[in-house]
Amino acid sequence: MLGLMQDWPLLCHRIIDHAAEMHGNREVVSRSVEGPIHRTDYRTIRERSLKVAQRLDRMGVRVGDRIGTLAWNTWRHLEVWYGLLGVGAVYHTVNPRLFPDQIAYIVNHAEDRLMFTDLTFLPLVEKLAEHLPLLEKVIVLTDAANMPETGLANAVAYEDWLAEADGDFAWKTFDENTAAGMCYTSGTTGHPKGVVYSHRSNVLHSMAVNQPDMLGLSSRDIMMPVVPMFHANGWSIAFSAPMTGTTMVMPGAKMDGASIYELLDTEKVSVTAAVPTVWLMLLQFLDGSDHQLPHLERVIIGGAACPRAMTAAFQKKYDVDVLHAWGMTEMSPLGTICSLKPEYAGLEGDARLDIQEKQGHAPFSIEMKITDDYDIEQDWDGKTFGRLKVRGPAIAKAYFKGEGGEILDDAGYFDTGDVAHIDPYGYMQITDRAKDVIKSGGEWISTIDLENIAVGHPDVAEAAVIGVAHPKWDERPLLVVVAKDGCTPTRDGLIDYMQDKVAKWWLPNDVVVVDEIPHTATGKIQKTTLREQFKDYTFPDA
Amino acid sequence: MLGLMQDWPLLCHRIIDHAAEMHGNREVVSRSVEGPIHRTDYRTIRERSLKVAQRLDRMGVRVGDRIGTLAWNTWRHLEVWYGLLGVGAVYHTVNPRLFPDQIAYIVNHAEDRLMFTDLTFLPLVEKLAEHLPLLEKVIVLTDAANMPETGLANAVAYEDWLAEADGDFAWKTFDENTAAGMCYTSGTTGHPKGVVYSHRSNVLHSMAVNQPDMLGLSSRDIMMPVVPMFHANGWSIAFSAPMTGTTMVMPGAKMDGASIYELLDTEKVSVTAAVPTVWLMLLQFLDGSDHQLPHLERVIIGGAACPRAMTAAFQKKYDVDVLHAWGMTEMSPLGTICSLKPEYAGLEGDARLDIQEKQGHAPFSIEMKITDDYDIEQDWDGKTFGRLKVRGPAIAKAYFKGEGGEILDDAGYFDTGDVAHIDPYGYMQITDRAKDVIKSGGEWISTIDLENIAVGHPDVAEAAVIGVAHPKWDERPLLVVVAKDGCTPTRDGLIDYMQDKVAKWWLPNDVVVVDEIPHTATGKIQKTTLREQFKDYTFPDA
Repeated sequence: MLGLMQDWPLLCHRIIDHAAEMHGNREVVSRSVEGPIHRTDYRTIRERSLKVAQRLDRMGVRVGDRIGTLAWNTWRHLEVWYGLLGVGAVYHTVNPRLFPDQIAYIVNHAEDRLMFTDLTFLPLVEKLAEHLPLLEKVIVLTDAANMPETGLANAVAYEDWLAEADGDFAWKTFDENTAAGMCYTSGTTGHPKGVVYSHRSNVLHSMAVNQPDMLGLSSRDIMMPVVPMFHANGWSIAFSAPMTGTTMVMPGAKMDGASIYELLDTEKVSVTAAVPTVWLMLLQFLDGSDHQLPHLERVIIGGAACPRAMTAAFQKKYDVDVLHAWGMTEMSPLGTICSLKPEYAGLEGDARLDIQEKQGHAPFSIEMKITDDYDIEQDWDGKTFGRLKVRGPAIAKAYFKGEGGEILDDAGYFDTGDVAHIDPYGYMQITDRAKDVIKSGGEWISTIDLENIAVGHPDVAEAAVIGVAHPKWDERPLLVVVAKDGCTPTRDGLIDYMQDKVAKWWLPNDVVVVDEIPHTATGKIQKTTLREQFKDYTFPDA
Repeated sequence: MLGLMQDWPLLCHRIIDHAAEMHGNREVVSRSVEGPIHRTDYRTIRERSLKVAQRLDRMGVRVGDRIGTLAWNTWRHLEVWYGLLGVGAVYHTVNPRLFPDQIAYIVNHAEDRLMFTDLTFLPLVEKLAEHLPLLEKVIVLTDAANMPETGLANAVAYEDWLAEADGDFAWKTFDENTAAGMCYTSGTTGHPKGVVYSHRSNVLHSMAVNQPDMLGLSSRDIMMPVVPMFHANGWSIAFSAPMTGTTMVMPGAKMDGASIYELLDTEKVSVTAAVPTVWLMLLQFLDGSDHQLPHLERVIIGGAACPRAMTAAFQKKYDVDVLHAWGMTEMSPLGTICSLKPEYAGLEGDARLDIQEKQGHAPFSIEMKITDDYDIEQDWDGKTFGRLKVRGPAIAKAYFKGEGGEILDDAGYFDTGDVAHIDPYGYMQITDRAKDVIKSGGEWISTIDLENIAVGHPDVAEAAVIGVAHPKWDERPLLVVVAKDGCTPTRDGLIDYMQDKVAKWWLPNDVVVVDEIPHTATGKIQKTTLREQFKDYTFPDA
């Protein structure tokens, strides 16, 4: 027996319909790539999105066609998304920070028919054009006045292209499971793999993250998504903000401290979201000034673990609540947010910061479990850790074209590749990457925990821990450190320092001092390279 | 091309899973029907719901089977809902306030196999039993100690029945469009008609109403649903509260002012919801006391228009925000809530109360339109009114067993039967019932507006306006009034009084003073009867 409720597919473009109808005059403010601040509203965004859709339809773009974007957060990027979605095409956000050959790979792998690009990235597209045989047209997100000379035969200024449409067009409708968007993950090994969002997953995800204990956006909020739309589905803010009629402030190409502060201040931003690096730049900028953040109420920090000192600075110096968040491109992307439930809401000072180091709890529609190597679920005691696996309607079940093969376990959970513990109130904390965790005699040791302790030693500038083969214990921790200028840390000194800070069996079996620890382009420790460097290392006791 | 997101059907019992896992120790506090306050939590509710499911499964209850409940808001009613849902059965909430023959009709029409009843309604079930041939068992929501003597051969105490299960059971899974619940509307004509909610509609509806501009429930809220679970899907609070881990306070059978106040105070309730009648009783109780409402932050008032004086009393005397709401059984039930968006958020005093007389704006997933008799959409100017029609995934497309036939228009909208205007910011205000509105020369006149003005006259105790046939204008308004004791209102006096308060062509053509205006059992003016009384009436100018 079925319910007798209306058939109303969850389609992304219904979000901009809602915003235009119920919050039509709410502003979308952008720092344009050309320079000036640009102001529009949801009603106008929708009108122009309809023109995008009409224009695409006239070009023969059909349901399922992939369309690339190489663009910052601006009103034009937003219009393009909704226009694409409204004809059933698939927005494929390309991360311009990838290596050019990776960009060429994913544009070809996705079979993008068109590319919408900001002025910033036009030189990149020009350079790559000969390697992108499927691209029919390059639409440059600017107007005729700002359109530069280009050697691309198939390039056109967006405003000219759009002017050919009158907007007398109706959205297409289709099954809610139709593909809506794509974002490639930059895996550490092999080619990037494409995550394919559906209209349903985007809508459900936005409804879930707008619950009050999560992002909790309202029509009275002014949200600045500093996180770019090309990063992990733009943290879904292009959907969750219009869904509740939240004013949007789009920072365009400028993410330095001064530029971000300027928008926070002049636009009276109440909530914002980005990775720790951005907030480090902002805090450094503020440090050398008298500026305060009187309008800002909360800042969402994700993409990497939020340092305790950053949380403390926002909360103590600027009275801004920090919401530590965790997610993945494969999760649309939100997984958890560390808002304070009643059990923790009364905490202050260090006790509060202790909790805020956790990545937080999940909303309805995201299920978590932690398992050991035998897929046995582990207790939620806030200590025992295991592989973090997740399940829900906005979590990937496969990658585009089947790359990577089967990615779900028998119960349908996706393995995040992270190792975490979860406390009795559902607060998850990531303790390591699964490929880095050390398996010693059947028990797991967190390399991140050991590193955090080791860098506390006064002689240590940087620390990395890797597992090295051991005849008795399978693997044991090796601590690799870089000394601070003029210091000479020793094995015994470091082990002694760590003695009372971890379980005895967690203590590294040896310490090596090196001149440099290898890093990725984005500044993360490159443990693969480090393990390679130490592949012939043998422990003294082995 | 489809998205590559996980298949995760939207099933209601996943809500209690989430509550148990992420908010397991959050309380559900009830005033038991037996008397004492009872305390439990979401983890325990889920455990006992699993036993309900296991017990039902053992009895042969299968997906789609209807199960009746005649029960107040208590933890047991909540357990029964989730237990039923977890085997795919359909909760059918029976409104005990209906006439006994209506109750028999709907229990038989729904083909309920079992009835869960509170002690309060056992005598009613005993009386009706011989007319309910399909009922296999009557489960009385109490324990052995409180189980009364009953002549029913097939009655059992709930706690005894439940004790036969050990809870080692797994929820069933099935398509999200499967029927989840039923609630009959008590139409003014003909038999009640059954609205059939699906798992999908209940889940989507709860996600929509928990957006911050709507109910906005959070884990830090303490919610008392005074509105009974048998009234219009219990305003969906049995889903929306556990979805966000909100503490629940269930008032059981006692809804008088003193009892409600006691729970608001002792349980520190932060948000509550009920019809105006309940709040009238509370305000009257408070009036004669020194009591304040220091914990209560907001009160949701729906089911009938919230009187301006009630909003003013809550806000001015008790500093409690009023959220005027509108919905229908056919809408799961929420349609709109009058929270203040930025355009109105700064208003105070009378200007604020003016806006709060509106029923408010809709969340994402509810579309509204107003149309004239030719189905032409009317402007959202806050003045022009039309038939209010709605569309969305939690709105009925038909009634059970096809009663009432086709109920959607060509574009898939459901006609609410209300007449309303909508302002430019999306705030809807109901001005009349479609069957009462007066059609004069092709234009519509709101009877409610005229009545509200007429009762402002110092000589008038009560007023009703009906349309009476007119040779030139099709219909013209007739004002029927009851005089205040010792007063003698006149036609000319009343017309003169109304002269500057409405458009000239809205003025009633005549006034009749009567001793009494007919009312329904719930106190509403019975316009059908009134029209019948005046069917031979002729206007002086006709």
